[in-house]
Amino acid sequence: MKIYFAGSIRGGREDAKLYKKIINHISYHGEVLTEHVGNDGLTLQGENKNPDKFIYDRDIAWLSLADVVIAEVSTPSLGVGYELGVAEALKKPILCLYRQEGKKKLSAMINGNKNFLCQNYIDFSTAKSIINSFIICH
Amino acid sequence: MKIYFAGSIRGGREDAKLYKKIINHISYHGEVLTEHVGNDGLTLQGENKNPDKFIYDRDIAWLSLADVVIAEVSTPSLGVGYELGVAEALKKPILCLYRQEGKKKLSAMINGNKNFLCQNYIDFSTAKSIINSFIICH
Repeated sequence: MKIYFAGSIRGGREDAKLYKKIINHISYHGEVLTEHVGNDGLTLQGENKNPDKFIYDRDIAWLSLADVVIAEVSTPSLGVGYELGVAEALKKPILCLYRQEGKKKLSAMINGNKNFLCQNYIDFSTAKSIINSFIICH
Repeated sequence: MKIYFAGSIRGGREDAKLYKKIINHISYHGEVLTEHVGNDGLTLQGENKNPDKFIYDRDIAWLSLADVVIAEVSTPSLGVGYELGVAEALKKPILCLYRQEGKKKLSAMINGNKNFLCQNYIDFSTAKSIINSFIICH
């Protein structure tokens, strides 16, 4: 199984270590195409050595290849939002993992869309259980 | 002309006053379907009185109706990123306005996509000129 993991890069790297843990867990289920998203050496500037056009073309090719898409959507990100729009158009099964903290709310364009399975979680252990259930179904 | 303006709501309201000025300017060119995005009374929680499914269905209907899409993409936002993905699939002409500040960079998924006209600007006066040129072309 090929898995596209989406997480914020230029939108904010606050969750980089969590992305790494999620990617590590997902990799027990299959090939994670976007391992670099969990690279905690990657800063807010993203992949400086690759031009944006290269990154775009590569990520769209990976999205097309993916059997499922798993996104961590707690950090607002234009790139993740865009990838979710493309993944939906490609009819991929999509899981959105969200940590409810304080008064912040997940975008209505994500949470109100029946094509996205949006799941709140509090700790990593719950996130792992949600991922396992999602992957078993696809 | 019907114009869909996209700006961050739950991703962050730092630019709400700017959105209002942009919407006011765009309204000289046609009908802005998403005037509420510039409502500076709208907080990070967004439209609390409308369920997410209602907001999603309404915004997708407006996107379908729009002749052009203008997005202010300086604040990372899942909703705006998603709307750009949908607008691209619908083959709408799309302008992305971006303020380059400090070390932050626009998402490679937006900046590297040839279907988006991404334009940097520094002040509102420049943003207006960019908007005028874009609308004259469509």
